[in-house]
Amino acid sequence: MIELRRDLHRHPELGFTEFRTASKVVGLLRQFGYEVIYGQDAMEPSAVRGLPAKEVLEAAYERALRDGADPEIAAHMRGGYTAVVGILRGVQEGPTVAFRFDMDALPITESTETRHVPQAEGFRSLYEGLMHACAHDGHTTVGIGLAERLSDRQFAGTVKLIFQPAEEGVRGAYAMVHKGMLDDVDTLFCQHFGCDIPLGEIHGSSAGFLASTKLEARFRGVASHAGSSPEKGNNALLGAATALLNIHSLPRFSTGETRINVGVLEGGTAANIIPENARMIIETRSVDEQTNEELERRVRNIIAHSAGMHELEHEIRVIGGAIPIVCSPELAEMAAEEAQHIEGFVNQKAMGQTSSLGSEDASYMIRRVQELGGKGTYMIIGCDLPAPHHHPEFDIQEEVLPRSVGLLERLAKRTLR
Amino acid sequence: MIELRRDLHRHPELGFTEFRTASKVVGLLRQFGYEVIYGQDAMEPSAVRGLPAKEVLEAAYERALRDGADPEIAAHMRGGYTAVVGILRGVQEGPTVAFRFDMDALPITESTETRHVPQAEGFRSLYEGLMHACAHDGHTTVGIGLAERLSDRQFAGTVKLIFQPAEEGVRGAYAMVHKGMLDDVDTLFCQHFGCDIPLGEIHGSSAGFLASTKLEARFRGVASHAGSSPEKGNNALLGAATALLNIHSLPRFSTGETRINVGVLEGGTAANIIPENARMIIETRSVDEQTNEELERRVRNIIAHSAGMHELEHEIRVIGGAIPIVCSPELAEMAAEEAQHIEGFVNQKAMGQTSSLGSEDASYMIRRVQELGGKGTYMIIGCDLPAPHHHPEFDIQEEVLPRSVGLLERLAKRTLR
Amino acid sequence: MIELRRDLHRHPELGFTEFRTASKVVGLLRQFGYEVIYGQDAMEPSAVRGLPAKEVLEAAYERALRDGADPEIAAHMRGGYTAVVGILRGVQEGPTVAFRFDMDALPITESTETRHVPQAEGFRSLYEGLMHACAHDGHTTVGIGLAERLSDRQFAGTVKLIFQPAEEGVRGAYAMVHKGMLDDVDTLFCQHFGCDIPLGEIHGSSAGFLASTKLEARFRGVASHAGSSPEKGNNALLGAATALLNIHSLPRFSTGETRINVGVLEGGTAANIIPENARMIIETRSVDEQTNEELERRVRNIIAHSAGMHELEHEIRVIGGAIPIVCSPELAEMAAEEAQHIEGFVNQKAMGQTSSLGSEDASYMIRRVQELGGKGTYMIIGCDLPAPHHHPEFDIQEEVLPRSVGLLERLAKRTLR
Amino acid sequence: MIELRRDLHRHPELGFTEFRTASKVVGLLRQFGYEVIYGQDAMEPSAVRGLPAKEVLEAAYERALRDGADPEIAAHMRGGYTAVVGILRGVQEGPTVAFRFDMDALPITESTETRHVPQAEGFRSLYEGLMHACAHDGHTTVGIGLAERLSDRQFAGTVKLIFQPAEEGVRGAYAMVHKGMLDDVDTLFCQHFGCDIPLGEIHGSSAGFLASTKLEARFRGVASHAGSSPEKGNNALLGAATALLNIHSLPRFSTGETRINVGVLEGGTAANIIPENARMIIETRSVDEQTNEELERRVRNIIAHSAGMHELEHEIRVIGGAIPIVCSPELAEMAAEEAQHIEGFVNQKAMGQTSSLGSEDASYMIRRVQELGGKGTYMIIGCDLPAPHHHPEFDIQEEVLPRSVGLLERLAKRTLR
Repeated sequence: MIELRRDLHRHPELGFTEFRTASKVVGLLRQFGYEVIYGQDAMEPSAVRGLPAKEVLEAAYERALRDGADPEIAAHMRGGYTAVVGILRGVQEGPTVAFRFDMDALPITESTETRHVPQAEGFRSLYEGLMHACAHDGHTTVGIGLAERLSDRQFAGTVKLIFQPAEEGVRGAYAMVHKGMLDDVDTLFCQHFGCDIPLGEIHGSSAGFLASTKLEARFRGVASHAGSSPEKGNNALLGAATALLNIHSLPRFSTGETRINVGVLEGGTAANIIPENARMIIETRSVDEQTNEELERRVRNIIAHSAGMHELEHEIRVIGGAIPIVCSPELAEMAAEEAQHIEGFVNQKAMGQTSSLGSEDASYMIRRVQELGGKGTYMIIGCDLPAPHHHPEFDIQEEVLPRSVGLLERLAKRTLR
Repeated sequence: MIELRRDLHRHPELGFTEFRTASKVVGLLRQFGYEVIYGQDAMEPSAVRGLPAKEVLEAAYERALRDGADPEIAAHMRGGYTAVVGILRGVQEGPTVAFRFDMDALPITESTETRHVPQAEGFRSLYEGLMHACAHDGHTTVGIGLAERLSDRQFAGTVKLIFQPAEEGVRGAYAMVHKGMLDDVDTLFCQHFGCDIPLGEIHGSSAGFLASTKLEARFRGVASHAGSSPEKGNNALLGAATALLNIHSLPRFSTGETRINVGVLEGGTAANIIPENARMIIETRSVDEQTNEELERRVRNIIAHSAGMHELEHEIRVIGGAIPIVCSPELAEMAAEEAQHIEGFVNQKAMGQTSSLGSEDASYMIRRVQELGGKGTYMIIGCDLPAPHHHPEFDIQEEVLPRSVGLLERLAKRTLR
Repeated sequence: MIELRRDLHRHPELGFTEFRTASKVVGLLRQFGYEVIYGQDAMEPSAVRGLPAKEVLEAAYERALRDGADPEIAAHMRGGYTAVVGILRGVQEGPTVAFRFDMDALPITESTETRHVPQAEGFRSLYEGLMHACAHDGHTTVGIGLAERLSDRQFAGTVKLIFQPAEEGVRGAYAMVHKGMLDDVDTLFCQHFGCDIPLGEIHGSSAGFLASTKLEARFRGVASHAGSSPEKGNNALLGAATALLNIHSLPRFSTGETRINVGVLEGGTAANIIPENARMIIETRSVDEQTNEELERRVRNIIAHSAGMHELEHEIRVIGGAIPIVCSPELAEMAAEEAQHIEGFVNQKAMGQTSSLGSEDASYMIRRVQELGGKGTYMIIGCDLPAPHHHPEFDIQEEVLPRSVGLLERLAKRTLR
Repeated sequence: MIELRRDLHRHPELGFTEFRTASKVVGLLRQFGYEVIYGQDAMEPSAVRGLPAKEVLEAAYERALRDGADPEIAAHMRGGYTAVVGILRGVQEGPTVAFRFDMDALPITESTETRHVPQAEGFRSLYEGLMHACAHDGHTTVGIGLAERLSDRQFAGTVKLIFQPAEEGVRGAYAMVHKGMLDDVDTLFCQHFGCDIPLGEIHGSSAGFLASTKLEARFRGVASHAGSSPEKGNNALLGAATALLNIHSLPRFSTGETRINVGVLEGGTAANIIPENARMIIETRSVDEQTNEELERRVRNIIAHSAGMHELEHEIRVIGGAIPIVCSPELAEMAAEEAQHIEGFVNQKAMGQTSSLGSEDASYMIRRVQELGGKGTYMIIGCDLPAPHHHPEFDIQEEVLPRSVGLLERLAKRTLR
């Protein structure tokens, strides 16, 4: 298990380019007897948010093949379709329990300090600028560990192991939900390592995830020579700068704390050309889902009118999003109870109060299961971190891996007994 | 004549409030035998641009009555309808020649320096903050002088003396044109004193008047308490400030020099209230009429989208405007020729090259006459000025008054012989 | 007492123009045997925030005299110095207890609906656009009622009754604190009627008042003709509009909820003049005092650089402000206990949880007393309101007046026994 | 000669990367007996404007070597120092006459239409996205042709052939002037093909080149997580967008027509990060040099205060520039006269009225020569163009090449006889 985690750590892959990771997951699940759905069968192409550019996808694909991805399996993922679902039916009929794991890495250069364990122990990322700095290598490893444990099929019902791409940027879950991957799930467990909770502690639920929307806006005007005929241009950067200032000027809401950011703006080509194109990335957040929706509506309105003001065309795409998570209390209690039976978990809480966790697109999966009458929760499994999430020296303690597998196995067995 | 000019100088009245001046003009024209059209008969109410607020109009009306305006005549002008047209038919049939004079003063406080002639000679403005600083007192006096000279009706055709309100802000001519006051005019002479041309010089035409539009925009949003529910407000000042910056950002045009200004912006009521209302005054100019129209179109579009961006209602009113003047060369030549017969004019040019004169709404009158097949010109009558136009020490040399009357009389007689 | 309250209600006076109200307070306090400090003796002129314009002050002063203000007393208040402090020493030595009352009205036009009690009973405001819509008429009445009850001097120590001007806009308390009016106070009780708490309930303390700063910024540039020499102007409105957009763009803070508003912006004179002057009113708020201070610092920085960007001069004045209130728990308990002895108070709580109360400049008084080792609290006295605070139909139930007097008398006697 | 031009056309190189072109020029000049100064000996490193990034320079250098550039010569140009000056002393003493040629190409993809001669005749650019679309391939060829003709040294004085890099973006001349390359020149001839003048026509001078400055501004703030601590960030994009709107809002000038453009803006990294960096490219122009300097001063001030407003660091670099050209009339006359002796030139004008030519950094060379008492001119040699300058189908008629060589030879001989 540690070997698998370290192999994944050495080969980090960004969201929607997890060709090697996902291929390996497919291969292992099949080896353990699972039916495997993946590629476009596991995620709806029209609902994919924030897909990287074609060249980026292709370069990553080539690299994955060079790094040993099974070419036949990877071919079905080409273009960014790296979702994987493993299904195993027990020896008896029964409900469906699902577990969700995320697989993607971050665009961060890993530390070379010798105090950083992956460096010291020789499993630092092979790629500069790419790093598993949010524990998804561990999460995926736990998913494979669980797959193996359950492969004896000694349960009454169905186990579904969901490996999602592109959790970073809250992008990948949405297309899996839209493909119906959650529609037959009665019980869903999601989990994350760390999150400011110490090793040995486990929370059966969590709170404080924000609703969030990430948008990409493009403005298209008309280029013109800035000296000889400036009036013939329609200036895309004037529209974009106006949008930027006005988006930041959106009011505070009495209905819930909000956040707003224009994270990227770029446009124009040369000093003497009226800028024809501009592109902008915007993020809204709120503790309140309706407030976030209202913020998104207002952002879209500002963009439309900033474009109209300078007679530009514009388009807006959702490139990421999340909603708040409301954990089902029964599952939270169940997780706290079962953790008592696992050595190493010394402090079990049903209700977590972790705040400021940012956003999680597992929220769409939990919401979908609950909408159809099922239950879901998002658990936090404590871990002493040498550095915060998304930091070049982030690392996990590997003892959480077997403990987590043990806990998830108990939850699967209890749910399907 | 000097007495009349000094009486007018002592009683300056702003545009559309020339109740005393215009009443006096009506009375004198009648005395000289003219048919007089005035009030709403001489200007189209629906085409009036930039009318002052009702309270301002009423206060000025009351003042005019106190200052001796004929109450019966003034009553027909109440509400700002101070245009006057005097008509006199000659003893024989013939074409129609018109002369245009402007009557309004400026919101400037007149100098109290003893070197300033009106101060020294005791005819300084009686009203602080109001002053004839653009020679319109002289222009009106010339009109009356001309009316008297022509009262013997020894000409073949019709003389039309047009006294327009509110030339400042280029507002008053438009409504007179829309009432059809120029529709029967075959020949139109307009004139201005000064304009950087020395005493004794006269230009039969002028060039360089800019097309211009003056707009008032109003934004209406929704007020809300800035502390307890900022998101319930629609912020009119955010819309207005966005419009202001983007209007100033309009491009230079290769089709002709332009000018743009947001001269006034005001909105909001209190520190803790999201501003509900805002008001803005905008001016565009260009040497090229189509360019000015395009600027106006773009300003309107910016305002509309700035409002839409913050979900505000808006309205835009034209409060002033002018177009370029293209003088008919025949009249320019005629003026230069006739001026040779008047003592005091030592330098006569048909074609003036005066530039940077700003804008003039006589332009609408000249255009209208030319559109219907007639001819028009705008003459400059030189005058050594102690201070520039619109300056607290502006003054004219009174010897230009009789000379100008003489010239206009010759032009009338020549045109109608 | 009801008569007094209704008399005050009929004669509302805005902040710093409470000439009639304050004169009446001075007269009555003297009648009851109090030593009275008022005018510039009770407030530091250099620390006055948000004083109205001289003309406004003078017009209100004249009106107050016409409405029966004692001319000799009022003369000492001329210019806006309407603070009053009444001091009464008991028959025995002891500590000093103070009570604070506010006197000013709001710029709101009172309802003429017959369901509105002041209209029905004939004590509606005599002045359109002015109204006691925040119960300060009641507060002042309670202060006078309390003055009378304590006039027998049967207590050990000193009573200080503080009548502050201009609570609206959180302006008046600051100058009284700076004059040292609170420096000898051991115990301070402040109170407000209403605040969403029903009749019969009383809270011995309150929470949720926000730190707030109100600033006025002025920009001064250079005027110029927008047609003939636009480049010679320094455009004050460009600076102000830039400041407005950037102030609204200030970030949310993770250290506490914030609010920000540019409530007023005005500048410029005419369509064809580059605007020379602009004025802006800004308000910041936060639940956290340091966060509000940081917001103020950033606002000032934005204004300075918006001015510098367009080569404008600028100045910034504080025109109002408040800090959070932390009530002394002993006084809160004491108030709840004593209220049990007053008929009509059926529900007594020491700790109030009223939120979103906005800001209160009594906060400076309470802070000052606490800084010097004393105690202070801000009590809420419930009242069923027909309409919210600051609404044209706002009214109080007059039965709260005697109850409040009774409570304050008990608190004074208990503190000074 | 045609062969050389077509070889250059096939191998276009952008400004400061003319390694192959300049190496070839060095080799041929040496072959013709010229003393050659090049690399850092011909241009002052500290005065280079708008040098491309190191990687870009290196990649172009490698390509040039692959394309046959002499490695020994090119090595001295590495890093962007591609200026070349060839010097030849005549058989007799005398003054110095210089001719200036530009060598760089444009980032444009050349047309593949068969009507496009380079495509039809097989000398289309070998590199997608690079093209000689402004005739510099022809100019350089003329320089070499002239070098050969003058190699017999039958003149009294010195000939200096100046091959400048990076005319596009008006970048390269400045560093050559600062190296003193023009300091001994008595007479300078510059020339351009095309410019809306038909084949057979030649203008001995030209007018209408604008003063221009191209700036790059960089803003550096502090990144921060947009959700968890937005207030810890200093937002570089807010500063840049504010600068952009205010730069575009700079006034029109009565002292001369102006142009202003923010051609590029880019900043930020991700949706959820407060943007730390932003970069902006700005261009100012004016027919009046002082006006352009004032515009540059104001742009710099706006950038400084936009940065200060958001507590950003900033730096500004000049990356290009030009000044107006005032041609020496004697040279203009001389050129028109000499052209009469060249077959093919059917229409010779001394004074050209070509307008809207944009900007030219030969202006610095002409200014320098004139400052030191010499004379300079910028000639236009007509050419029927199938498409405008900078267009994918731009091409020249090759018959202008020998004619131009002939003209320049006559001018050299006449000047040095």
